[in-house]
Amino acid sequence: MTSILIKGGTVVNADRAFRADVLTQDGKIVAVGENLTAPAGATTVDAGGQYVMPGGIDPHTHMQLPFMGTTTMDDFYTGTAAGLAGGNTTIIDFVIPDPQENILDAYKKWRGWAEKSASDYSFHVAITWWSEQVRQDMGTLVKDEGVNSFKHFMAYKNAIMCDDETLVNSFKRSLELGAMPTVHAENGELVYLLQKTVSDMGIKGPEGHPLSRPPMVEAEAANRAIAIADVLNVPIYVVHVSCIESAEAIARARARGQRVYGEVLAGHLVLDDSVYRHPDFATAAAHVMSPPFRPKGNSEFLWKGLQSGNLHTTATDHCTFCAAQKAAGKDDFSKIPNGCGGVEERLAVIWDEGVNTGRLTPSEFVAVTSANTAKLFNIYPQKGSVSVGADADLVVWDPAGTKTLSVKTQHSKGDFNIFEGRTVKGIPSHTISQGELVFVQGDLRAVKGKGRYIKRPAFSDNFAANKLRAETLAPSAVKR
Amino acid sequence: MTSILIKGGTVVNADRAFRADVLTQDGKIVAVGENLTAPAGATTVDAGGQYVMPGGIDPHTHMQLPFMGTTTMDDFYTGTAAGLAGGNTTIIDFVIPDPQENILDAYKKWRGWAEKSASDYSFHVAITWWSEQVRQDMGTLVKDEGVNSFKHFMAYKNAIMCDDETLVNSFKRSLELGAMPTVHAENGELVYLLQKTVSDMGIKGPEGHPLSRPPMVEAEAANRAIAIADVLNVPIYVVHVSCIESAEAIARARARGQRVYGEVLAGHLVLDDSVYRHPDFATAAAHVMSPPFRPKGNSEFLWKGLQSGNLHTTATDHCTFCAAQKAAGKDDFSKIPNGCGGVEERLAVIWDEGVNTGRLTPSEFVAVTSANTAKLFNIYPQKGSVSVGADADLVVWDPAGTKTLSVKTQHSKGDFNIFEGRTVKGIPSHTISQGELVFVQGDLRAVKGKGRYIKRPAFSDNFAANKLRAETLAPSAVKR
Amino acid sequence: MTSILIKGGTVVNADRAFRADVLTQDGKIVAVGENLTAPAGATTVDAGGQYVMPGGIDPHTHMQLPFMGTTTMDDFYTGTAAGLAGGNTTIIDFVIPDPQENILDAYKKWRGWAEKSASDYSFHVAITWWSEQVRQDMGTLVKDEGVNSFKHFMAYKNAIMCDDETLVNSFKRSLELGAMPTVHAENGELVYLLQKTVSDMGIKGPEGHPLSRPPMVEAEAANRAIAIADVLNVPIYVVHVSCIESAEAIARARARGQRVYGEVLAGHLVLDDSVYRHPDFATAAAHVMSPPFRPKGNSEFLWKGLQSGNLHTTATDHCTFCAAQKAAGKDDFSKIPNGCGGVEERLAVIWDEGVNTGRLTPSEFVAVTSANTAKLFNIYPQKGSVSVGADADLVVWDPAGTKTLSVKTQHSKGDFNIFEGRTVKGIPSHTISQGELVFVQGDLRAVKGKGRYIKRPAFSDNFAANKLRAETLAPSAVKR
Amino acid sequence: MTSILIKGGTVVNADRAFRADVLTQDGKIVAVGENLTAPAGATTVDAGGQYVMPGGIDPHTHMQLPFMGTTTMDDFYTGTAAGLAGGNTTIIDFVIPDPQENILDAYKKWRGWAEKSASDYSFHVAITWWSEQVRQDMGTLVKDEGVNSFKHFMAYKNAIMCDDETLVNSFKRSLELGAMPTVHAENGELVYLLQKTVSDMGIKGPEGHPLSRPPMVEAEAANRAIAIADVLNVPIYVVHVSCIESAEAIARARARGQRVYGEVLAGHLVLDDSVYRHPDFATAAAHVMSPPFRPKGNSEFLWKGLQSGNLHTTATDHCTFCAAQKAAGKDDFSKIPNGCGGVEERLAVIWDEGVNTGRLTPSEFVAVTSANTAKLFNIYPQKGSVSVGADADLVVWDPAGTKTLSVKTQHSKGDFNIFEGRTVKGIPSHTISQGELVFVQGDLRAVKGKGRYIKRPAFSDNFAANKLRAETLAPSAVKR
Ligand SMILES: [Zn+2]
Ligand SMILES: [Zn+2]
Ligand SMILES: [Zn+2]
Ligand SMILES: [Zn+2]
Ligand SMILES: [Zn+2]
Ligand SMILES: [Zn+2]
Ligand SMILES: [Zn+2]
Ligand SMILES: [Zn+2]
Repeated sequence: MTSILIKGGTVVNADRAFRADVLTQDGKIVAVGENLTAPAGATTVDAGGQYVMPGGIDPHTHMQLPFMGTTTMDDFYTGTAAGLAGGNTTIIDFVIPDPQENILDAYKKWRGWAEKSASDYSFHVAITWWSEQVRQDMGTLVKDEGVNSFKHFMAYKNAIMCDDETLVNSFKRSLELGAMPTVHAENGELVYLLQKTVSDMGIKGPEGHPLSRPPMVEAEAANRAIAIADVLNVPIYVVHVSCIESAEAIARARARGQRVYGEVLAGHLVLDDSVYRHPDFATAAAHVMSPPFRPKGNSEFLWKGLQSGNLHTTATDHCTFCAAQKAAGKDDFSKIPNGCGGVEERLAVIWDEGVNTGRLTPSEFVAVTSANTAKLFNIYPQKGSVSVGADADLVVWDPAGTKTLSVKTQHSKGDFNIFEGRTVKGIPSHTISQGELVFVQGDLRAVKGKGRYIKRPAFSDNFAANKLRAETLAPSAVKR
Repeated sequence: MTSILIKGGTVVNADRAFRADVLTQDGKIVAVGENLTAPAGATTVDAGGQYVMPGGIDPHTHMQLPFMGTTTMDDFYTGTAAGLAGGNTTIIDFVIPDPQENILDAYKKWRGWAEKSASDYSFHVAITWWSEQVRQDMGTLVKDEGVNSFKHFMAYKNAIMCDDETLVNSFKRSLELGAMPTVHAENGELVYLLQKTVSDMGIKGPEGHPLSRPPMVEAEAANRAIAIADVLNVPIYVVHVSCIESAEAIARARARGQRVYGEVLAGHLVLDDSVYRHPDFATAAAHVMSPPFRPKGNSEFLWKGLQSGNLHTTATDHCTFCAAQKAAGKDDFSKIPNGCGGVEERLAVIWDEGVNTGRLTPSEFVAVTSANTAKLFNIYPQKGSVSVGADADLVVWDPAGTKTLSVKTQHSKGDFNIFEGRTVKGIPSHTISQGELVFVQGDLRAVKGKGRYIKRPAFSDNFAANKLRAETLAPSAVKR
Repeated sequence: MTSILIKGGTVVNADRAFRADVLTQDGKIVAVGENLTAPAGATTVDAGGQYVMPGGIDPHTHMQLPFMGTTTMDDFYTGTAAGLAGGNTTIIDFVIPDPQENILDAYKKWRGWAEKSASDYSFHVAITWWSEQVRQDMGTLVKDEGVNSFKHFMAYKNAIMCDDETLVNSFKRSLELGAMPTVHAENGELVYLLQKTVSDMGIKGPEGHPLSRPPMVEAEAANRAIAIADVLNVPIYVVHVSCIESAEAIARARARGQRVYGEVLAGHLVLDDSVYRHPDFATAAAHVMSPPFRPKGNSEFLWKGLQSGNLHTTATDHCTFCAAQKAAGKDDFSKIPNGCGGVEERLAVIWDEGVNTGRLTPSEFVAVTSANTAKLFNIYPQKGSVSVGADADLVVWDPAGTKTLSVKTQHSKGDFNIFEGRTVKGIPSHTISQGELVFVQGDLRAVKGKGRYIKRPAFSDNFAANKLRAETLAPSAVKR
Repeated sequence: MTSILIKGGTVVNADRAFRADVLTQDGKIVAVGENLTAPAGATTVDAGGQYVMPGGIDPHTHMQLPFMGTTTMDDFYTGTAAGLAGGNTTIIDFVIPDPQENILDAYKKWRGWAEKSASDYSFHVAITWWSEQVRQDMGTLVKDEGVNSFKHFMAYKNAIMCDDETLVNSFKRSLELGAMPTVHAENGELVYLLQKTVSDMGIKGPEGHPLSRPPMVEAEAANRAIAIADVLNVPIYVVHVSCIESAEAIARARARGQRVYGEVLAGHLVLDDSVYRHPDFATAAAHVMSPPFRPKGNSEFLWKGLQSGNLHTTATDHCTFCAAQKAAGKDDFSKIPNGCGGVEERLAVIWDEGVNTGRLTPSEFVAVTSANTAKLFNIYPQKGSVSVGADADLVVWDPAGTKTLSVKTQHSKGDFNIFEGRTVKGIPSHTISQGELVFVQGDLRAVKGKGRYIKRPAFSDNFAANKLRAETLAPSAVKR
């Protein structure tokens, strides 16, 4: 039986930070308190001057994503291993069925691929089409498979885009099942038109990518999805909120009392759209993801949203297409496969730009990197908390440690690093997953296949509240 | 030759009010000034203590609307005559082709019906489907027929609803043609679902109507149409803005610098949704229109929008289905034909609740009842202005006159009056259309067929500005 | 040694709810977990079907408030006892020095009065004037006396009102000391004028009270205090936010990334301004407090603020003037002493209108009734948390229990109950203070003098973050 | 008798643009129409390809401003002459009494100074202190002297700053008199503190100026003044709105239905705060004015406000301190006299950046450069309109003409040009003042003393509307 005693650190949870030792045993935290003694055989980690925090949860990754007969560079093993190196102990990836594909089949396929994961993982399942079978299978996924969130792409016309009819059907079904609908918010019809318009203007390079997906395209879709959720009375989670207008749509809805949540990507917090005008195609193309990086000013608004509580989680959308794959769009930006890495860098980048600058307190850092995600997807306090009974998924964080991020030193198999050259202060010294030291002072000890699939129960608190609200406000017929 | 001298009144234009006489000849205003003398044979109207204003323009009516083999009660003659009795000298009605119907054919059909009009009139043309032929015919309508606005219904699924693809195509074509896109903003997919949901709750009466079309359904569609217009860089006009959330969508867009305009119906300014819970079915059903009347509080916000300039025009959506027609929805609110009257009462209701209460100055009244509409649809100052050279379409307004509005005394052929029993202070004493007295102290002298079709030129000022803006901001390709 | 075992309940903390027993010993919680066994001599409380929550903290009370030679009805004993009966185990009251009065003297006076308290208590200290001595004494209070918050009245001209100069000085000093400035936000100059204006209109009764303090008077002051705090880079807490406009000022500041917090009174959440038009003077006068109850619609906005996280705490401003005292303003509303009760009813009213209606989850209830206050005033998790090591201040909450609130049955010595006749579902079955059962199924066992003064340490997390932010953004001089 | 015929141009008014000739006689416009014939002796101006617009009105200048025994460079002659060269035919300057100075005396002093003006002029009068005499003299100014606006400085502590008590008194008096209160909106208490704080950080140069007056300082004051005006029910005009937050305060108030108006300076529309970090002291100091130039992004928001109608007028705050005067603050930025020029460049800069870029239509240009000011200060259509009966104050605008703005070529006596080096397209070819050609193709023919003082009547339309609104909403006493 494995036991680790983390001595002398400051435990940081979302609600507070305090001096305490942490003791783990058999994959669980068994004690949090001052002056704990190590049981026989326990490994002791000296956390003096360091923070002990819940391992990061990345609620938005695409490991091993199929693409025209190939896949992204990181498979579930290398991707989760890179995550561990960055202090992350859980990812939530996506099952993305093709239109007309049976969603249970797709789910099983992805489960199979994920078996090699080094850290714990779970899956959102995308609803890319609609039928009575899909409706039934959503029930099976929730009740039997521990899926409590469904993803909807509002962009990618003629591919996986949901129209309003499918959104309405799937959101309604999600409400019945106690599962959270989530959306990739971009108006696919407008993207389709703009890709053509921009191309017709003679702009074929990666700089055309952000021009074809301006902020209003995202804001419209976010507003629409939120309105549908409001009318249906279901909570909603908007992935990768990248711009002021979209964050404002969320804030407006929250001010109206709606239970709406927003996710921000590490990249959107620190990069801007100047990257697309880089003279080197490969560099510019390496930044092509959707929504794109935005004009300066947007990042600051996202940070403020995270601090104020109008935005809630941070993620990466980790999706590592290599230069050869990106080259598919050499003459047509709309053909560049969308995706960037980041699973390994997220925590350090957010700490450095968030905590070191006073935008976030350490507790707020924990909230937006693990605890809020765990709460929203109903795996709290198993994940996202340093407390007795929780999974021993921890990161010991050295606020004085520094590192220069680079493709040369990253563990991810991607061939590009969007944070290249950035020196961060504040890095993981140790990552503990399932009670095992998997990353120690730069030494990655990830074990292929050690990760477990995490079931997530349906009907988080929001659903009970929304149900009571609906009953309270239920209309009546007029007797005539 | 006919000449009228209006003596001793206060002329009110959108920019100011001033003491002046007004002289008309042969259908035009030929002098505005103090102490004018009447030419031989001129009729003199004593306007002492009264205001002399441009005749009202109602930019949103449905006269003689076909409905399941019958039509609304008011045809173009009785409807425009009722308008004249209320001080209105122009209406803009709608050509509404069936999906797949040739839009030029529909246009000609409506032009034929309108020949019996007593006042001047024009037409917005609805785009209810899309094809290359539609695209071409839009050009013919603009270039040959003086149509400079196209209407899009975002509701009425499985009937005349436009999906995003049609909106995008039609807005883009409107931009090329210099014509203003307009929208009926309600998310048809949500209405469709809610009609079923509400009915399933056992609510079958008219009180189900507003429940199936809550404010968020309107706000979502308004926001979406505005976003599409923004991305395409075309001005946009939202008809019948009825609620706070929708007005806010417009205000937000305007604050972003977008050229967006909003129309408000007289009914939405003074009624609320309690009407749908009237114990008498016929009464409740008589108020069924879309968007429905809203909870108290919304009206006040609309008034403030008109005053501040975030909303721009007022209309009625005059559409007089009778009790027998409304009875089609006796057991199913979704089958009640949508529509209410008002063309005759709009000016008096808005004066009484707007000017008498200090919400609007007299000049602001003129702005929102005629001048702004004339400017937006590019027929200013021919219409909407008391100035030399303008059409002699005038109303002499008695601010001390009172009247109790009622179905019993109205000129409209509808069998209901949504303003029933309301006593207004401030009524037309004389209406002058094309330089002829057509309404004098309660005596309606409307002449069938006297009204003229008004052509409206394309490319109002907004289009030139938007074009320059686009050129200024035009992106460039990166040389690589 | 006292020990209590609470068996079979659902523990509710701000971050989650879970089935667990709770064991207390010697005034502290010593275990939280399933299937705990009672130590010898322990009292067992059956919490089956009930919630076990942190005792309520009321951050805004005025017990034993001096007023023209008399005091309010409730002294620190009866007031805190009433609080215990309602499930509250801590209050934060106010030391209010007269202008020119030494603030340490005032502090000692209040400390003396509070010695008879039955529950734990602490003090905000009001800064009502400014001098070098005041500046120094603020330091003494923070460093020696555990005061970490200072109160500023922006109303009450010619009495305790702070002008901008004092606000600026005191906020700056608070920042240095790591203490939270708080404000009663009403523009005293406007109140002064309006009291005269309203009186001059012939309105002398209590209905004049809200007319002399409209929402904009509060919103202006809130906005001003927030702006000053922003410029000085100090966190700020706005007491008794009562209206939409004021809550929006807070939300705007938070969206800008400012650390601003808002408190809401139970009364403002459920009452409206119609109370001031009650035909009975005594009834109307009994509701006179500042800010006054607001027009319908404001309450709903406050609820949404609490749910979304734009507002943070709930309180009562408990201040029980009796009918005879209120009669001082029989002929002049401006002379009616301001204050209402509520310390006993707050939790039940907020549960009933908040949790039972789906506005709040049980965890959100705990957040806004105790945990957030404890965090903001830096006594968390000693207070506001059901966790090992926390004070054994608990309430066992019976969600099925009902009670009709009334002056006849209340424990407070006030002679009026603003919630009179309201039947709530969800009431405390047991209150535990310092590990002792002080309220059991309606039986109040409060002990005079048992309450302790709670010191609150300075420099909560917000201060460290703000300091880093300032350093990050520090401007530099231009070398010339 | 002088007569001018302007042939072949496009007349631009705020409501529309149209082809017409314009004929003036004896200082008035006597005809506007197509194909006018010149009377005998008339001068003909060929306006082919040009626009004929109302002469610009600059509602905010400080000519000949006294300063520590000297005055600004431009006196009323050179300043108004420079204005004429730039197409401006009227200025509204400020009478600024010292505290305790009799305001009528100050008014007379300024009137005397202004007699040498070359163009028409008028005066706002500042209220810098309060007494019964001031109250009475405000009445004299309005009733006898044609003053209909009063200015209030919310900054400049220990000098001309108004506290809330004076604001409240003066706004109330303005309402009685039908005069518009206006405010310089900056919180003087915060400026006072920040000047010290910034200096204490070792920042003594001009870069300290914007640091001591951040946007929130302006926004707070604007919000406060607007709130006071709202509570008192008086319209209000905010001068030199420079930042997003302040413009938003105005927009919020307007959305609430309040009659609030905002002025923007040409400089704030095109410059940003980088000027204060210029390595040359004189250059940096030359830009010192209050509010200071703002970070990039603010200008764009102001443009959008002008276009949408949330902001209304443009001005310059023309106040030409020379380098020697500016040097007073060589070692202390707070001692640099505040002021920049611009009266000569405003129209060209706004045309070039506004109309040429599609931000404004030509009619919107006229609205914000003359017509709106004339309406708000009740001298419309005497000023601000090309129409029969209006003053013959006109500018013939050559949209193809270009000019590079420079201190070397300017007519103003200032020794700096904040628009130095900017090449504008769109310049005046002719300026006509009182029916005389005073600027012809670069040849300035200004006549000293030719300008007239313009009386402005009280009680513009807004006052009548506000009075009706107050009566409509008047509260009543409860009968008890
Ligand atoms: Zn995505
Ligand atoms: Zn993704
Ligand atoms: Zn419609
Ligand atoms: Zn219609
Ligand atoms: Zn208070
Ligand atoms: Zn209080
Ligand atoms: Zn100023
Ligand atoms: Zn000035």
